[in-house]
Amino acid sequence: MDAEEFRRRGKEMVDLVADYLENIEDRPVYPDVEPGYLRSLIPTEAPQDPENYEDIIKDVERVIMPGITHWHSPNFFAYFPTASSYPAMLADMLCGAIGCIGFSWAASPACTELETVMLDWLGKMLQLPECFLAGTHGQGGGVIQGTASEATLMSLLAARCKAVRRIQATNSDMSEMEILSKLVAYTSDQAHSSVERAALIGGVKMKKVPTDEHYAVRKDMFMKMVEEDKADGLLPFYFCATLGTTPSCAFDKTEELGPLCNEENMWMHIDAAYAGSAFICPEFRPLLNGVEFADSFNFNPHKWLLINFDCSAMWVKKRADLIGAFKMDPLYLKHENQESGDHWQIPLGRRFRSLKMWFVFRMYGLNGLQAYIRKHVVLAKEFESLVRADKRFEICADVVLGLVCFRLKGSNELNQNLLKRITQCREIHLVPCQLSGRFVLRFAICARKIESHHVQKAWQHITQLTFELLQEPEH
Amino acid sequence: MDAEEFRRRGKEMVDLVADYLENIEDRPVYPDVEPGYLRSLIPTEAPQDPENYEDIIKDVERVIMPGITHWHSPNFFAYFPTASSYPAMLADMLCGAIGCIGFSWAASPACTELETVMLDWLGKMLQLPECFLAGTHGQGGGVIQGTASEATLMSLLAARCKAVRRIQATNSDMSEMEILSKLVAYTSDQAHSSVERAALIGGVKMKKVPTDEHYAVRKDMFMKMVEEDKADGLLPFYFCATLGTTPSCAFDKTEELGPLCNEENMWMHIDAAYAGSAFICPEFRPLLNGVEFADSFNFNPHKWLLINFDCSAMWVKKRADLIGAFKMDPLYLKHENQESGDHWQIPLGRRFRSLKMWFVFRMYGLNGLQAYIRKHVVLAKEFESLVRADKRFEICADVVLGLVCFRLKGSNELNQNLLKRITQCREIHLVPCQLSGRFVLRFAICARKIESHHVQKAWQHITQLTFELLQEPEH
Repeated sequence: MDAEEFRRRGKEMVDLVADYLENIEDRPVYPDVEPGYLRSLIPTEAPQDPENYEDIIKDVERVIMPGITHWHSPNFFAYFPTASSYPAMLADMLCGAIGCIGFSWAASPACTELETVMLDWLGKMLQLPECFLAGTHGQGGGVIQGTASEATLMSLLAARCKAVRRIQATNSDMSEMEILSKLVAYTSDQAHSSVERAALIGGVKMKKVPTDEHYAVRKDMFMKMVEEDKADGLLPFYFCATLGTTPSCAFDKTEELGPLCNEENMWMHIDAAYAGSAFICPEFRPLLNGVEFADSFNFNPHKWLLINFDCSAMWVKKRADLIGAFKMDPLYLKHENQESGDHWQIPLGRRFRSLKMWFVFRMYGLNGLQAYIRKHVVLAKEFESLVRADKRFEICADVVLGLVCFRLKGSNELNQNLLKRITQCREIHLVPCQLSGRFVLRFAICARKIESHHVQKAWQHITQLTFELLQEPEH
Repeated sequence: MDAEEFRRRGKEMVDLVADYLENIEDRPVYPDVEPGYLRSLIPTEAPQDPENYEDIIKDVERVIMPGITHWHSPNFFAYFPTASSYPAMLADMLCGAIGCIGFSWAASPACTELETVMLDWLGKMLQLPECFLAGTHGQGGGVIQGTASEATLMSLLAARCKAVRRIQATNSDMSEMEILSKLVAYTSDQAHSSVERAALIGGVKMKKVPTDEHYAVRKDMFMKMVEEDKADGLLPFYFCATLGTTPSCAFDKTEELGPLCNEENMWMHIDAAYAGSAFICPEFRPLLNGVEFADSFNFNPHKWLLINFDCSAMWVKKRADLIGAFKMDPLYLKHENQESGDHWQIPLGRRFRSLKMWFVFRMYGLNGLQAYIRKHVVLAKEFESLVRADKRFEICADVVLGLVCFRLKGSNELNQNLLKRITQCREIHLVPCQLSGRFVLRFAICARKIESHHVQKAWQHITQLTFELLQEPEH
């Protein structure tokens, strides 16, 4: 395909993209395929000779679309949102064309530098303490990771390295393995599975701190665990706090927990993967209070800030902690400016992802981004009101941002049956969670183009299915 | 930005992309900026209100382009190639629009399934042993990782987990930490820094095996190290072989090393990040012989197979080894088909990257891809001939694929000076490496649109600078 053909096909693809997103509501939100459906629809081997582009495009509708869960449909209320906006898609096209691999400053200075500045912009939107910003002379700064999982892992590894060095400095007789065997990390019993996974990868123990009735970690319970572990000869070194947990969007009490971590020389990482985007609104910023005690902080603009996946923003107070943990520079990577952006993540290479931030921040402005967040929160409150007005249902957790956890009063089985019907109808899509042993439905406001009428229609659909379910003899 | 504006702006962006790539030769390949250049060119904060799209596009030329190292310029001969093709860019646009997050089958069945089938297609192109393919009932299969670094890390972690379980099964008195403290991984002294980094992350020792005069690991030296370590009470568990090392594109002797790893119950991972793409050509396929002994194999189609970053292809003989190492399933991720594609990588979420493979394989066909590889190898041989014909220069390593390692006969300082002049002129871009203590220049055939005249011109430029350099009194 030469440049001329790309100009033609590219413009057709732009229309295909716009058509897909404009008409996404016409498609069932959840696919009706069986595992393995795709293999039988395409050849078993790559072609020897080039095919026609038209045939490939036809196959998008024939092969791909039947197996898509349409995350950007206004009928999608599952998981958490994943961001999508036109400015981000335009920036991604440019990113693909430039196609530089940003593994060092010299490999493409603009890539590394724009990233540092965009993370400063975003940090200021969040009113992060100055010490997290790079500026021109700061010790802190931000970096784009692929996912929150990677950010958590990086913070845990940096904390592990720092703890080992600190402990060895005063206990020169302890071997690294001996120290590793005594290190303990902590997180909420509501934390994402990737936090536990980070500890598994890093080869350290991780303990789950029981949460209160709002599914939040509080100081008293955490302090008790730390004290007991210290009495047992263990070495507490890391706490991953969650602001906006995956099951119910609960918030750990970082203002209480932070000072404790600081006193105990424990690294506090804050994972606000979903909720973080909301902190750009002054009315939600208090939820981030306590970040001043943290060593690192992360959230996913690719969830709720209109920047297409992947774009997970991570800040640290001391860049040297992250870089120092893994630095090793073979000659083919050496160059004259080693400072910015090198060795901050697991992969060595990365795309020019900050272009997406730059386009989105400028095309929406802070006001536009705040308006977007607020609209989603209002819609969640609207859904909460609908649930509360129906005595057959209950709300299962505080509705703070765009997630509503609810269930039918009654058995877990009843709620499982309701969700099964919802999934089978394919008109809307939800996923469940477990809260205090109860099977709960999660209703997350997700799509960029969602409006009140979608929420109303979803609720009508849920109540209709509920009506049918409760008609059945066994209920 | 609404859909109508996106249609207009998107089409303009398609032209901008084509214009950039068509005229890339007019730009100096390496940027002339100082560290920190970008910060002063843009505001210190995000705008409150939306800006004009035109202003953003103007800033691409004003702010971004001066700081770009143009990886797709035919004057770029640094590092290794990074792939770029129009079909891959078209697929990436579609990927952005669908915007699904493929962390499980249910999250988008097409995303998981196309990936599995594309890795089978690619595995067949490479003539991988059947046991690496998923098929409909295979125990093996492929997955797309972001980078080779992630693939190496995943293989090391899976090997670590497997080794701990195996050793504990027969030594129930050994604690996990005791085992970890005795595990040893091995790799070539020529291996990429990310291999050593994987061991650091995984908290295990890693030893570097000295290489022969072709920079390859051979059996005798490796066996000696393993025997000595076993005699010292250590537990060898993992070997990362490299096919196509970063400094000189050397090939470890996997046909000798594989059987040894199998006998010793050591996991053999093969990292062929750059060279792997060439194995689709029958004449280069013998370089992959020995893969039948490996537990996992990885290469980067995003380097040399026309699929834009990120797309690193990894296969394992037993999927269960990778999945089993980290599986944990909270309720919000549970669904009815847990088999394909879940938990195979560090990040939980990922883009619909297999679309790029599907478009590229079909638009080029196997013949087109083979022709592309062969053309690059021919151009490297052409450059090798030019170097060999000039008695002032020497070739420093076998030229097998698209990389030529060469230097001026003389001191390291002389060669450093030559490279410095090359870099400062910005007409072509190279990076160095170190081979047997000598400072060596690497000339890698990189750009998709490179032709013989670019190679000829680059050599003329190098010899002109050499002439000037050797004129100076100190030489």
